[in-house]
Amino acid sequence: AVRLRVREALGAREPVGEVQVQGWVRSVRSQKEVLFLHINDGSSLESLQVVADPSLENRDLTFGSAVEVQGKLVKSPHKMQNMELKAETIRVVGPCDTWSFPLKMKKHHPLEYVRQFPHLRCRSNTLGSLLRIRSEATAAIHSFFQDNGYVHIHTPIITSNDCEGAGELFQIETSNEARESAEKTHFFNVPAFLTVSGQLHLEVMAGAFTHVFTFGPTFRAENSQSRRHLAEFYMVEAELSFTKSLQDIMQVMEDLFKTATSTVLSKCPHDVELFHKYIAPAQYLKDYFFFFPSCRISYNEAVEILKQASQTFTFRPEWGCDLQTEHEKYLVKHCGEVPVFVINYPYDLKPFYMRDNEDGPQHTVSAVDLLVPGIGELCGGSLREERLPFLESRLQRLGLADAYQWYLDLRKFGSVPHGGFGMGFERYLQYILGVDNIKDVIPFPRFSHSCLL
Amino acid sequence: AVRLRVREALGAREPVGEVQVQGWVRSVRSQKEVLFLHINDGSSLESLQVVADPSLENRDLTFGSAVEVQGKLVKSPHKMQNMELKAETIRVVGPCDTWSFPLKMKKHHPLEYVRQFPHLRCRSNTLGSLLRIRSEATAAIHSFFQDNGYVHIHTPIITSNDCEGAGELFQIETSNEARESAEKTHFFNVPAFLTVSGQLHLEVMAGAFTHVFTFGPTFRAENSQSRRHLAEFYMVEAELSFTKSLQDIMQVMEDLFKTATSTVLSKCPHDVELFHKYIAPAQYLKDYFFFFPSCRISYNEAVEILKQASQTFTFRPEWGCDLQTEHEKYLVKHCGEVPVFVINYPYDLKPFYMRDNEDGPQHTVSAVDLLVPGIGELCGGSLREERLPFLESRLQRLGLADAYQWYLDLRKFGSVPHGGFGMGFERYLQYILGVDNIKDVIPFPRFSHSCLL
Repeated sequence: AVRLRVREALGAREPVGEVQVQGWVRSVRSQKEVLFLHINDGSSLESLQVVADPSLENRDLTFGSAVEVQGKLVKSPHKMQNMELKAETIRVVGPCDTWSFPLKMKKHHPLEYVRQFPHLRCRSNTLGSLLRIRSEATAAIHSFFQDNGYVHIHTPIITSNDCEGAGELFQIETSNEARESAEKTHFFNVPAFLTVSGQLHLEVMAGAFTHVFTFGPTFRAENSQSRRHLAEFYMVEAELSFTKSLQDIMQVMEDLFKTATSTVLSKCPHDVELFHKYIAPAQYLKDYFFFFPSCRISYNEAVEILKQASQTFTFRPEWGCDLQTEHEKYLVKHCGEVPVFVINYPYDLKPFYMRDNEDGPQHTVSAVDLLVPGIGELCGGSLREERLPFLESRLQRLGLADAYQWYLDLRKFGSVPHGGFGMGFERYLQYILGVDNIKDVIPFPRFSHSCLL
Repeated sequence: AVRLRVREALGAREPVGEVQVQGWVRSVRSQKEVLFLHINDGSSLESLQVVADPSLENRDLTFGSAVEVQGKLVKSPHKMQNMELKAETIRVVGPCDTWSFPLKMKKHHPLEYVRQFPHLRCRSNTLGSLLRIRSEATAAIHSFFQDNGYVHIHTPIITSNDCEGAGELFQIETSNEARESAEKTHFFNVPAFLTVSGQLHLEVMAGAFTHVFTFGPTFRAENSQSRRHLAEFYMVEAELSFTKSLQDIMQVMEDLFKTATSTVLSKCPHDVELFHKYIAPAQYLKDYFFFFPSCRISYNEAVEILKQASQTFTFRPEWGCDLQTEHEKYLVKHCGEVPVFVINYPYDLKPFYMRDNEDGPQHTVSAVDLLVPGIGELCGGSLREERLPFLESRLQRLGLADAYQWYLDLRKFGSVPHGGFGMGFERYLQYILGVDNIKDVIPFPRFSHSCLL
């Protein structure tokens, strides 16, 4: 017998004489004359219908049990499906205690419910579709960059840079060290942290390969229970040498989004449809199709728009202050619920590596944030300060010139205008699928007070 | 002018009237009548030859400087190259202080030398080629699994499982916690560690998608300065449901190796050639072509071979003891310097999740290690114990039944025979390229006493 995945069986053009299909039972319906099963093996959202003689029924043949079915693959008489399997033998490989199994037959389990079972929720329709989409999106993002001549770099997870000077870092010790005193010598001789961004390491590589990208885990020890934050999440980051304008950076963001999204739509149409039908609020149905053209405003304009708003904000909009989530939402609404690029942020708001626009004494830098409906910030990028004197004096003022001597070196030896950006991968998935809670778009969410499995 | 990458310029079929090429100067040769430059932008090992009028010479035009060259792309009169660029303008974008720049023109820098400069070594020929190969191998591995119907899973980096019970773990605290007392409450409420393997999480997913894989960083706090160990390294791991024999697992290892290697060979022939010409010991030249068929022996046979060896070992070979590096080397030599699968290891040597062969009371388990010349263990895999009573009693004896209740659940709800394996990605690169030191096949090596950048 030919072993077929469910997806292959469903897509077969011709009947096949003798096949074997393996998977888990998604439904059992026993009639007087015929026994109907649906078998799913995770290769697709759709299950394969199995038609069998009632004599093949068996008390272990329940929802959730693992089975091997042999028989003939034939054209289905039903409109809703192409092929079905006429069973000759059905073997229960692994029974399932339906009473204690938290998933139930033909029941729609809300995302909050299945989140309680991190080891079983992938067997629900929604998480199954989500993880197939996540896998395809991952592949599509890799392909986009490889097809465009970018070299993929594994930027380090453990780093001795406390990159942006931000406080919310995880520190690493060997488990013995942690149990003893913190004053002991470190495994790496220096304090070591989990990375918050691969950018500085990518800049090293952009000085050799011109176009580089990374796609890996990043970490933030934020003590937040919000729907928008995880302690461990994935970032796509790219860095481009010989780039003189923010426009180039924005163009790559746009191309990446369009290419990845159209690949996902064409590779998993049914999985995406499930989200747009049952999960996403109605407005999402159009957003991803009409993502671009988008709106583009400067930070100056953004502050003016916010100041003139009739709405009252918890944080009063003021030039020089960070845009809060409430501000981002307003700007997106103001622009007609489309993605909004905000460019040229105040110098003092942004990290040391961003490029001075020289539009006044340390007035603004060439930074860009992409805000999208329902999510807020999806991407952030900038041109990097490639001019040695500018960078050196800024690092000196911050007292960081020694720590970043290697970074200054990059400006001494064949420095080039360059820039890059990062995109939060979970936020991307939330956006294209309309998923409200970030915990539902990652296989094993880690956040404060929770690290299950 | 059309902007071309060096790789595109070199591969052009026809002359192009007006082009711009950007990159870094790899050589400058000034003659009375003509100025020769070689420009590299990291898109290939080969540089593009630029021919210019000596009047375009410039004191900043030195080895390592960044330049933009405009001119005509023409057929080269030289045999060694296809096209060359007749320069009309040459602009130095970023000069390079050649005196303090640690890389020198036309000098072959040994790997040990460039290792001292983690932020600049990617600009050397060897590391340039290495990182392009690493990028292509990464893509090839992803494609292999996606093309064969595997779902890609981001298994978590931070985990509360101390997976194999092994001691060499990194523990995570927020940087404030680490500074204060270790007795404080943890960020995640429980002690959290950096993952040593994604296997158990992949097993969760194999229960939904049948075939799954992961490819990410793993960690070992081994206090070792060896050429074979890193604190942070990459693992490719796969898990297959409905698999009843080790043969299936070995077949996937072999297919993965062959597919990835032949892709790398066809995508970066020149980069690979550099290693085989200048880096690898001569024997490597044949190994990767004749990787399979390979040799297959049982652990029992391996011990017999070792016992009968004329060689004296530091560790005496004894049934029930782990194979040491010296033993692995001998076995590989004994089999004719080909890859060797060793199967069916002693029950007590292996972790709790491996499947009992029932060839005696807890005698051996269905485990397989793949040993390769020059490296030792490249892959390790096993069938997993899918039978609830076997797994439950083993976990109870180890006092782990409570901690792994979720793992036992997987055997209660539609359990299936399954197995999987992991391959060390850096060791794979070392093997196909013949690189002696593992620090030279990863962009930013982390090991005890060292975490640069």
